[in-house]
Amino acid sequence: MPSERLRQQLAFLMEIDRLKEVLRQTYLTTESRRRENSAEHSWHLALMAMVLAEYADEPARDMGRVIKMVLIHDLVEIDAGDTYIYDTQAQARKLSEERRAAERIFGLLPSDQAEEFRALWEEFEARETPEARFAAALDRLMPLLHNYHTQGVSWQEHQVRSDKVYAMNRPRIQAGSRALWELADSLIKDAIGLHYLEE
Amino acid sequence: MPSERLRQQLAFLMEIDRLKEVLRQTYLTTESRRRENSAEHSWHLALMAMVLAEYADEPARDMGRVIKMVLIHDLVEIDAGDTYIYDTQAQARKLSEERRAAERIFGLLPSDQAEEFRALWEEFEARETPEARFAAALDRLMPLLHNYHTQGVSWQEHQVRSDKVYAMNRPRIQAGSRALWELADSLIKDAIGLHYLEE
Repeated sequence: MPSERLRQQLAFLMEIDRLKEVLRQTYLTTESRRRENSAEHSWHLALMAMVLAEYADEPARDMGRVIKMVLIHDLVEIDAGDTYIYDTQAQARKLSEERRAAERIFGLLPSDQAEEFRALWEEFEARETPEARFAAALDRLMPLLHNYHTQGVSWQEHQVRSDKVYAMNRPRIQAGSRALWELADSLIKDAIGLHYLEE
Repeated sequence: MPSERLRQQLAFLMEIDRLKEVLRQTYLTTESRRRENSAEHSWHLALMAMVLAEYADEPARDMGRVIKMVLIHDLVEIDAGDTYIYDTQAQARKLSEERRAAERIFGLLPSDQAEEFRALWEEFEARETPEARFAAALDRLMPLLHNYHTQGVSWQEHQVRSDKVYAMNRPRIQAGSRALWELADSLIKDAIGLHYLEE
């Protein structure tokens, strides 16, 4: 018989299977062009952190913590759902729903781990540490790449124009990595030139 | 214009989007009961490493490396496909196909990173370090949990019986964590009792 502690850990691990059913507004670049789910997105971000670590602006960065943050940053969506970054009304409701979700989902873990995971999630949300700023920059850069490589289908679907794309992405990406903002800026300009994105 | 180095890194990051289309033999525990893909599986394993780290048998374990290993361990499946662990013929073909895949996929990265990722993947495959043994144990434990929580659907589909489940799982899980093997053993026994798995 597993211990009570192990039982709690397993309950958490089985509960988070549900993140694989939370769909985002981005589309895969593969032939199926299906919508991406938040679990595979989190995986992709973790790989991005491994590959693009060198572009973080601030020194003394703990890439291990960045990886952990992006792995857990969307778990609250199991209860609160994915909020499209360009949907400003939904963004306003988001915070309190996500706090309740964090309480419940991380609360499935033994209390020491619940605290540890909750703190990582709070750190990501607050963007006050270099690690959180870099993680948040990656979380904005990835959908830009997906949009670019799917000819802007998600932008068009939601009639998002370039001013909004700049407003939502520049501050957050720039705060984590000037080099990656340069990249993002050139992608957006390209996307406008190619009519993936309306000016 | 991004540098040649950044361009290679982005090419790799876009290429690996395809892992989200590689389907495994396990089913999600959620209502949809769809087959799981290897990208979301890799995410789930990374969370498992974070949560179950304390059960690794060997000391001086670098959990950051375990997490990185499980994040990249299935990338070769983009070319080689997923091989069901109970399909022994396919397992024999697997190695050379996966080596070719590693060459191509990690080879998209700048050479220093290609080497680093390749080394991580080789370490996982060889299971000669404590970190690799723990990562490999988790990679076997997770499908057991999924099978158990979906009433053994994948075992039944492939007519896998308990002797095979023991043979494929005991050595590898036991080599990484005796405590997790105890758990797995009790799950398998339960699964037999509940007729999820034939004896």
